[in-house]
Amino acid sequence: MSSQTYHAIAHRKFKSLQSLIPKSWLLDPLPDPLPLDVRSLVSKSTVLTPDELSITSSYDVTSLSQLIHSRALTSEAVTTAFCKRAAIAQQLTNCLSEILFLPAIEQAHALDAEYKHTGKTRGPLHGIPISLKDTFNIKGYDSSIGIASLAGNPAKENAALVDILLEQGAVPFCKTNVSQTLMALDSHNHLFGRVLNPRNRRVTAGGSSGGEGALIAMRGSVLGIGTDIGGLGQEIGQLPGIDKLGLQGSAGLMTTSVRDCELFLKAIADANPWEKDPNVAFGSWEGQGEIGKKPLFGVLRADGITTPLPPVAKVLNETVEAVRNAGFEVVEINAPAFKKYHSLANSFFGIEGNNFPLDILERTGEPLIPWLNARLRRKKHADLIQLSELHVTKSALEKEMLQIWRDENGRMIDALICPVAPHPVPEIDRWNGVGYTSAFVVLDYPAGTLPVRDISNGDLKDELPESEVLGGWDLRNRDLCKPSTFIPSVFRPSYHSYMFQTFVYPFSSMDAVGNPILQVYADPSETGHPDINDRKIYLNTKLSVQVVAPRLQERRLYQAMALIDEILRGANSEIRARIQSRSTVA
Amino acid sequence: MSSQTYHAIAHRKFKSLQSLIPKSWLLDPLPDPLPLDVRSLVSKSTVLTPDELSITSSYDVTSLSQLIHSRALTSEAVTTAFCKRAAIAQQLTNCLSEILFLPAIEQAHALDAEYKHTGKTRGPLHGIPISLKDTFNIKGYDSSIGIASLAGNPAKENAALVDILLEQGAVPFCKTNVSQTLMALDSHNHLFGRVLNPRNRRVTAGGSSGGEGALIAMRGSVLGIGTDIGGLGQEIGQLPGIDKLGLQGSAGLMTTSVRDCELFLKAIADANPWEKDPNVAFGSWEGQGEIGKKPLFGVLRADGITTPLPPVAKVLNETVEAVRNAGFEVVEINAPAFKKYHSLANSFFGIEGNNFPLDILERTGEPLIPWLNARLRRKKHADLIQLSELHVTKSALEKEMLQIWRDENGRMIDALICPVAPHPVPEIDRWNGVGYTSAFVVLDYPAGTLPVRDISNGDLKDELPESEVLGGWDLRNRDLCKPSTFIPSVFRPSYHSYMFQTFVYPFSSMDAVGNPILQVYADPSETGHPDINDRKIYLNTKLSVQVVAPRLQERRLYQAMALIDEILRGANSEIRARIQSRSTVA
Repeated sequence: MSSQTYHAIAHRKFKSLQSLIPKSWLLDPLPDPLPLDVRSLVSKSTVLTPDELSITSSYDVTSLSQLIHSRALTSEAVTTAFCKRAAIAQQLTNCLSEILFLPAIEQAHALDAEYKHTGKTRGPLHGIPISLKDTFNIKGYDSSIGIASLAGNPAKENAALVDILLEQGAVPFCKTNVSQTLMALDSHNHLFGRVLNPRNRRVTAGGSSGGEGALIAMRGSVLGIGTDIGGLGQEIGQLPGIDKLGLQGSAGLMTTSVRDCELFLKAIADANPWEKDPNVAFGSWEGQGEIGKKPLFGVLRADGITTPLPPVAKVLNETVEAVRNAGFEVVEINAPAFKKYHSLANSFFGIEGNNFPLDILERTGEPLIPWLNARLRRKKHADLIQLSELHVTKSALEKEMLQIWRDENGRMIDALICPVAPHPVPEIDRWNGVGYTSAFVVLDYPAGTLPVRDISNGDLKDELPESEVLGGWDLRNRDLCKPSTFIPSVFRPSYHSYMFQTFVYPFSSMDAVGNPILQVYADPSETGHPDINDRKIYLNTKLSVQVVAPRLQERRLYQAMALIDEILRGANSEIRARIQSRSTVA
Repeated sequence: MSSQTYHAIAHRKFKSLQSLIPKSWLLDPLPDPLPLDVRSLVSKSTVLTPDELSITSSYDVTSLSQLIHSRALTSEAVTTAFCKRAAIAQQLTNCLSEILFLPAIEQAHALDAEYKHTGKTRGPLHGIPISLKDTFNIKGYDSSIGIASLAGNPAKENAALVDILLEQGAVPFCKTNVSQTLMALDSHNHLFGRVLNPRNRRVTAGGSSGGEGALIAMRGSVLGIGTDIGGLGQEIGQLPGIDKLGLQGSAGLMTTSVRDCELFLKAIADANPWEKDPNVAFGSWEGQGEIGKKPLFGVLRADGITTPLPPVAKVLNETVEAVRNAGFEVVEINAPAFKKYHSLANSFFGIEGNNFPLDILERTGEPLIPWLNARLRRKKHADLIQLSELHVTKSALEKEMLQIWRDENGRMIDALICPVAPHPVPEIDRWNGVGYTSAFVVLDYPAGTLPVRDISNGDLKDELPESEVLGGWDLRNRDLCKPSTFIPSVFRPSYHSYMFQTFVYPFSSMDAVGNPILQVYADPSETGHPDINDRKIYLNTKLSVQVVAPRLQERRLYQAMALIDEILRGANSEIRARIQSRSTVA
């Protein structure tokens, strides 16, 4: 098929999405030039009223729920405010894939009427607008996952999770943009374009749930559902059933407070999701583990494949020290099996030989995005013997990894603290290995990311200690802190071909026949950042840590995250207080 | 290889097993002829003292545990008693594969000393002798699973469950015989011979955990561990890892009282088995579901593949009526998806094309047992596309089956009552379809079998109502109640070839060079039962029902079973009382 096909579909999809945003919610014209951090443009525009700015800026689900319950706010007001802010987020970061603003506001109105009539809310999610990754089926809407040939084929039924959300009174109001094939680490595809990171448009928004992340960073949603890999009732762009032979996906959530994780997970568990989705394990929220009265933490500093860059090592250490200073013990965890997960995860991701996703892309002549173009190839799919061998390795490593949950004295480790990635949030298209997170996907351990603090100028000065290069992955990771090799030569060709393959809506305009004019986003000469090769690119990004618990112990994970977050916020305010007092004295 | 090879290995294994039974525990000579029901021979022999007869006959684990705890009994006395009785069971039913009598008695002695010294038992399993299916690895002992080429290769480490049992103070004292390849439904193989049903040697002991069943029916063990398919730390005689692509096995238990199920499952859950075996789901016993205060039961009367024969339909109905009479509601469950599980299970069992088990049999020239010879063929193994399709079907059916847990008014069904098989315990080698149990293996629903009552002469008189024959499986099932076709012609050839392929130890004697003389067991002319074609073969077997709960809700299953068992025992004693009072009046 001609490459026009996917262009035409993308154009139709774009126009259809645009038509679902009320004219008065458009930023027209967009500021020129756009700042690197677009978040402040929300309050600078007049799209949201002061009340709507406050609703979307100041609360988490827990507090919004209380305000709706006490009738201080209506769901309609809350939903309208988030729809408006999501519309702005879309214009600035290209984060949405489906827009349900109008039906969502109608649903919110009906929920308010129900509450008024019955005097009862349906629970803590009553009236709360919730965004979902494009993978989740919502009846009547596409689950195109950014692939042109899957567009124009609305889902015939809701994903089980969507049904549960509706029952609980939550208000799905948009679906969010993803990475092509869901396998890329930048949320970029030819149907919707690329999601931009609203804090710093030069760095990646990540993927495959990057649209959801960008939307929440814009506070265009207060709670979003993403995934690791696919799951029932979802479109995963893979051979149906293949997840059962390899890695099964699971839904996760992104919130603006840690306590919202418990509110949401408990609400879902209370709805008996296992009665709707056979992939969900039975168990009440209370039955999903807990940390001890005096919890013992483990720290896993490196995966043995890539040495964390200095800012990552530093923030991990700060977290460990803060936890220790708060009176809790943190022991060093040595997990020799951990490094084997890097290649095991890749083997599992590749069992189908990428034929299914490449087939559905080729239907409309849709090319691979640059990130995938350098990585995704058709292969023969694994046969039963190879698959069985992979599972033998997986089972053996699972058993070996059980040892990380006891320290050398046999005491139980309540939760593990480790890096999320070996580098800070990197430049667009430069996220490389995902071993620090994919290992826990393969292990099926619940894991969460806690933002710790912004990266500072000081963080950029540290050099990696002179240590052995661990291999190719480590070498590429080290490139990310050496300005001289900042854009490796292997990157340039795909970077240039990308200029002609993609378009980024916030920067596009329409030509005479309505086709988007292709514009490249991040060419250094155009963006006015000639010092792109400088580590300053990392400024205004968050440094985070990952917290991990054993399988099926989501509550134990939550409790560990809540404790560490409390400690960190305390520590941060102490640090802030110290800096402020120093300034005052000076 | 010559067929001598497996004969020689089997002979060595037989001699080695015999040598581990103390001479004074042998029934010498065996009664001739042996009765059909050999259970009474235990008390007729002088191997067990009256105390040992009482220990093994009168208690379950719960009461034995109390007696050990109160020091009324020692573990050594209890273990010795069960070792003796297991030795007799072995001589009469050929139920054992490995014998640990001496080390078990030593371990029991040490546990008694520990208790005396510390004043503390390790818990409710302290000092309780426990038998395990041959699949479970015990360090230093074979897990040959009845295959000659796997013999003589002692396990290098314990199965996770064995480690947990040892920690809890349980005393593994023997392993039990299985079916060849674990896929046959009679526990029969060329390494150990055939397990006989101690109640009625003409009917099957079932399989693959038939040795365990026979041992417990003899009260040669008070608690045994069997399996559905394989599991970690077990020898399953299949391509390693294949279980992860198809059906995963799970361990189950066989007890002499329902309450022992809770005692055991709680003891195991309390030992945090998920910390030792990554295949075990996290969750306390209390977190594994419960029945409601006024439980609602569902009855599934037929699978749509085979119509239950009259005695099976009758005992199911009696159970339902008893539950209703006790004041509980039982609703009829219609599950159209259920019949699809019959072929789905068979498809999954066959994904590897049987190459691995046939290879390990051929190493020593070991032929298939008759039951398998008619059924097991080498095939090409499934490819990734076929496997994925199977999983798509499985997932779709799983979702469909979720509907059985609500009645038409939306009320939750606490547990399901259904047949265990469409026929009573059948003649040797005549168990055919296993759809009524394999469906729940594929669904991963916990299920249990409750014996209801002995089959009666009256039960044998009923004819199947004139109804449509549902297909080949149904036709073969109907054969089991029509004496004229009782031994179908397709059965005879394999039956005769079996005469020259197997030997059954209780009937064998040694020839001059130490090879067992092959003797057929059940040739009608030799056993003195010319009326084998009569339904009377079913007399002195138990009729049972199956109870089923949703996935991961073992406690809900236990509670449902305990309630139904209580009702049935009440009903049975009422029936007994009524019969007795009638006799008195007459």
